[in-house]
Amino acid sequence: MSLDILLRQDSGNVTTLTMNTPKSLNALSDDMLAALQNAFDDIAQNPKIRAVILRGAGKAFCAGHNLKEMTAARSGADGGKAYFADLFARCAKLMLTIQSLPQPVIAQAHGIATAAGCQLVATCDMAVAADDTRFGVNGVNIGLFCSTPMVALSRNVPRKQAFEMLTTGKFIDAEQAEKIGLINRAVAYDDLDAATMELAQTVAAKLGSVVKIGKQAFYNQAQMPVDAAYDYAADVMVQNMMYQETAEGIAAFIEKRAPKWAQ
Amino acid sequence: MSLDILLRQDSGNVTTLTMNTPKSLNALSDDMLAALQNAFDDIAQNPKIRAVILRGAGKAFCAGHNLKEMTAARSGADGGKAYFADLFARCAKLMLTIQSLPQPVIAQAHGIATAAGCQLVATCDMAVAADDTRFGVNGVNIGLFCSTPMVALSRNVPRKQAFEMLTTGKFIDAEQAEKIGLINRAVAYDDLDAATMELAQTVAAKLGSVVKIGKQAFYNQAQMPVDAAYDYAADVMVQNMMYQETAEGIAAFIEKRAPKWAQ
Amino acid sequence: MSLDILLRQDSGNVTTLTMNTPKSLNALSDDMLAALQNAFDDIAQNPKIRAVILRGAGKAFCAGHNLKEMTAARSGADGGKAYFADLFARCAKLMLTIQSLPQPVIAQAHGIATAAGCQLVATCDMAVAADDTRFGVNGVNIGLFCSTPMVALSRNVPRKQAFEMLTTGKFIDAEQAEKIGLINRAVAYDDLDAATMELAQTVAAKLGSVVKIGKQAFYNQAQMPVDAAYDYAADVMVQNMMYQETAEGIAAFIEKRAPKWAQ
Repeated sequence: MSLDILLRQDSGNVTTLTMNTPKSLNALSDDMLAALQNAFDDIAQNPKIRAVILRGAGKAFCAGHNLKEMTAARSGADGGKAYFADLFARCAKLMLTIQSLPQPVIAQAHGIATAAGCQLVATCDMAVAADDTRFGVNGVNIGLFCSTPMVALSRNVPRKQAFEMLTTGKFIDAEQAEKIGLINRAVAYDDLDAATMELAQTVAAKLGSVVKIGKQAFYNQAQMPVDAAYDYAADVMVQNMMYQETAEGIAAFIEKRAPKWAQ
Repeated sequence: MSLDILLRQDSGNVTTLTMNTPKSLNALSDDMLAALQNAFDDIAQNPKIRAVILRGAGKAFCAGHNLKEMTAARSGADGGKAYFADLFARCAKLMLTIQSLPQPVIAQAHGIATAAGCQLVATCDMAVAADDTRFGVNGVNIGLFCSTPMVALSRNVPRKQAFEMLTTGKFIDAEQAEKIGLINRAVAYDDLDAATMELAQTVAAKLGSVVKIGKQAFYNQAQMPVDAAYDYAADVMVQNMMYQETAEGIAAFIEKRAPKWAQ
Repeated sequence: MSLDILLRQDSGNVTTLTMNTPKSLNALSDDMLAALQNAFDDIAQNPKIRAVILRGAGKAFCAGHNLKEMTAARSGADGGKAYFADLFARCAKLMLTIQSLPQPVIAQAHGIATAAGCQLVATCDMAVAADDTRFGVNGVNIGLFCSTPMVALSRNVPRKQAFEMLTTGKFIDAEQAEKIGLINRAVAYDDLDAATMELAQTVAAKLGSVVKIGKQAFYNQAQMPVDAAYDYAADVMVQNMMYQETAEGIAAFIEKRAPKWAQ
């Protein structure tokens, strides 16, 4: 199943996942959510992979949930309630999986990224977008406020800009997305693959074990009061200092030579 | 009372409140605080109202607390302490009322917005300003640090910019206010009414019930750890999916037609 | 000791601390950490000082920890573990001391500010930088993720930009640092001393007692839910209103005259 709707390509230590249901603008159907969850669960176990790129095939990055599937669920005795609860739980699990993945995940956005598609962009650790990409959390236009996308969006962009996107349902362009912090940068569409891969390879060239504890600490400490955050981050630093590769990295730096890293 | 110092105009489903004591630069006197509280309490009960604009008559949006009234209170036996405690409690209650109001509130700023006036801008869900507006939390200049305005300010703008405003007491212009996230955008003074009304009408055209749960969820989830925020937001999404109007909105979208909404 | 490696100059009520080990790019060695801690502990006790500037002698602001000292500690029986734990605890204590200092602290950055040097910039209440300054949290390049610098960095700049700096190890320039909120502003190198001193003097001209409770409240309330933050900030306002100098400041403002402040 996942072979078709989610393409996976490993290039060196960078894995690229391509959502591949372009006719539905790569909507997060039940099958797509499952394919993504399986792929990330697999990647989490593979320390040879050091960075992940998430992109979409066709005209769009991702247009959010599959509304036809959701509407079909309404025919159940409970009007779809149990299905919806399960669906949003699965979706939230996927988002938290990306955030807790040992490897950095980079969204490579183009075309449109709306609703849960915009949430994916916000959730990924970094994002590069083609400069004609449009971003929106526009569920409000059809009567479904983007409450779960808002969790990721509001942790990335300033309050008033997030509120405007959520309640007007209007798109913002890539320049504005960069300005407010939703993406790291916008590039010309023709440069998108290369720019994203370059970022991925830069990160993938670091020690995987170090990036792993760093990424984990990044999100953990962000939710702590500052003194607790320092206690915790200091522990992480001590742990990091005890890695053999770190000793070698620092020694090499002092001796002005390249580190001899087995990894 | 409130008829005079606080004007109210209902235009379709948008209500405009105009602070109307231009001689005192629309200071938040006891009477003005009471008039605003009453108006928002009334609006909260009226589901026909879908968006609120808050503006000021005369040369300024709002210049903060009424210093003469505060100084008069010093003649009491306690040097004004009980009055001050009550005053700041009433002011905080107003700010929290705006944030918990079912309808989005848009600050329409011009001239100056200082101290508690700047706090109002920060507190409103969105803000549009004339491009010659000056913003400041400049109580420090007269020996009264803007500690309560800071609560709203620091939840909207980056830390160092907020700290500079608070400790230097200097004004920032509308361009800078937009850059740091204090307002959504600056427009020419002649376009201010129209631009703010257009934003209000855009929001007011959505389903009121949906914007209401979305706004409430926006502020609630922002204070939660990310996993708790997802649990909560997923519940809100399920609740939202069960609305009849939402079913109609999604069905209409799939069928490429306009939704038939009673609201 | 501290006379040599940390220069201190008092000019009016502004104190300038200059890290003065230019050969090591003002690295935060054990001695430098101790000298800074002593200096800030002393300043905290001196209400005549109203603002502090922190700068570096030579080509750089500060290049972070002293890697040679850290490497030497590895020869201990525990591989340096106890030393590292103590080191990061001392460093975190210094950062929290700066944040809880009664006086505002302004980083005056030039050249490079990397790792714990970038952390110092993020930790200071405000920062002015020469426009050729480069900022980085680039420990990841040598296998040591900047986990403690991240605590300060991530409380100043948007999430995706912080993540990119931490995992790519790349420098950002002063223009970008200003854009993302890491510094208040960049100025020409030749204007750096004057611009920083002007900011310091502006703050130092306010009432020290007022800036002190305001700064303390700024960081305290930032970590509270909004309603608790308002309760707390309202108490601070009442306390502030009872200061005699504040009564005089407000009276002077109403009477359109300069306040007669003893301070």
